[in-house]
Amino acid sequence: MRNILLTIEYDGTDFCGWQRQPDKRSVQGELERALTTICGTEIQLNGTSRTDAGVHAYGQRATFSGEFGIPTEKIMYAANNSLYGGMNSQTVGDVRILSAEEVDPEFHARFNSVGKKYVYKIRNCEEDDIFKRNYFYQVRRPLDITKMKEAAKFIVGSHDFACFQSAGSDWKKSMQRTVHKLDVKCREYLENDKFCRDVEIEIVGDGFLYNMVRIITGTLVDVGTGKIHPVAVPHIIESKDRQNAGHTAPPQGLYLVEVYFDEDTMLANAE
Amino acid sequence: MRNILLTIEYDGTDFCGWQRQPDKRSVQGELERALTTICGTEIQLNGTSRTDAGVHAYGQRATFSGEFGIPTEKIMYAANNSLYGGMNSQTVGDVRILSAEEVDPEFHARFNSVGKKYVYKIRNCEEDDIFKRNYFYQVRRPLDITKMKEAAKFIVGSHDFACFQSAGSDWKKSMQRTVHKLDVKCREYLENDKFCRDVEIEIVGDGFLYNMVRIITGTLVDVGTGKIHPVAVPHIIESKDRQNAGHTAPPQGLYLVEVYFDEDTMLANAE
Repeated sequence: MRNILLTIEYDGTDFCGWQRQPDKRSVQGELERALTTICGTEIQLNGTSRTDAGVHAYGQRATFSGEFGIPTEKIMYAANNSLYGGMNSQTVGDVRILSAEEVDPEFHARFNSVGKKYVYKIRNCEEDDIFKRNYFYQVRRPLDITKMKEAAKFIVGSHDFACFQSAGSDWKKSMQRTVHKLDVKCREYLENDKFCRDVEIEIVGDGFLYNMVRIITGTLVDVGTGKIHPVAVPHIIESKDRQNAGHTAPPQGLYLVEVYFDEDTMLANAE
Repeated sequence: MRNILLTIEYDGTDFCGWQRQPDKRSVQGELERALTTICGTEIQLNGTSRTDAGVHAYGQRATFSGEFGIPTEKIMYAANNSLYGGMNSQTVGDVRILSAEEVDPEFHARFNSVGKKYVYKIRNCEEDDIFKRNYFYQVRRPLDITKMKEAAKFIVGSHDFACFQSAGSDWKKSMQRTVHKLDVKCREYLENDKFCRDVEIEIVGDGFLYNMVRIITGTLVDVGTGKIHPVAVPHIIESKDRQNAGHTAPPQGLYLVEVYFDEDTMLANAE
């Protein structure tokens, strides 16, 4: 029994999300179809993160196992070829495998992950850019970056993050998580003589509740526009009440950057 | 009878092109539907350029006329509102009106245009970027920019451009056109430690044959990869034979930037 670990990149725009769904185009479904073709046997993938529709990934991970003939080093090329038609194709599709390696038979992309890094991209300009609508959260009101950084500091650490979880989630499970890093980076530039900012929120944590990164982002945006005061954030966390936190930022700004399988690598990335 | 001139921006990715087609999503069709709603009377648009599927526009122009009550200064907001659901919408669609002005009843966006500016965007890196697949022509083989600039010089001027027209076009019409400007600009940068170039081909001309910008681009790319020698270009033009020119570059790198309605503005933009 061979067990293969993949690194996968995708543009989430035209997918219903990671998870396979009947009659919809999912990342899992597209990959399983390609892998089933090249392995000659039905493949089921286990992804680390079940990203929502519109959410992107630079480094999703997934494992699959079975008995198949194709050498590990050929999986990436053969699957990408099947995914977007032709090794010599001039075009690239919206999902591709970046690496494939054989791992221990027990290894599981989700159960063995100890943490993840996400980036959330915001474009803060007076006017929207139609060419960026699927890749950024476009916020038109000016953001106070200093206040956003101030608020972010309160979120780092180990907390019960119930306030940052979408309603309807399973309340019986523990909502204690550790955010190892939460950085707000800002690049300012002029575009057509207008002042613009690209804001990147980088978050490293041991686990994330449903919609947690998007609600943290929405809360930071609400801090940036003055709707929420930075010092209110620790009280919001303490309240464990979703109603007190900010809005849920839309999916298209969210990117799954990296999955960690050991603590040391995660902590090195959280410095 | 009022006559309105629009400036329109769109991301061509999810359109079958500018021109209305039954059961397909066209830019013209989407705009006509919105304008018909807000004007309360059936609107037919005349666009300057019938861009193909996948081709983008920063500044397409179009006119429409009729008897309708909506004040000219409200057309842009009302139509955009109808196009992408809600003045307070957090999202922007893939087409929007940038301006609307009342013009002389005789004025026609196509017949009154004296020239256009296009930009063609190439990403020249060893590896494709899946997030740029709809907005750049991704060329993996290194391009010799100096040779491309050298070749571009031969194309500027008035010529019979039959060699740069797709087969199947109407051969009875004159193929004499004037290219006022053809610039090859290059920005070099490192991305994930890999050397990359963004190449922009800017072209201003009094008129363009079918696929002319894409065939000129394909020819310049073939010069850049060494397939065609720069000094062969004047002979290709002289031959008037499409077979001698380079390949047709794909649509997604092409952007209609500006339409000119007077010679002076065009020539000022060609300097």
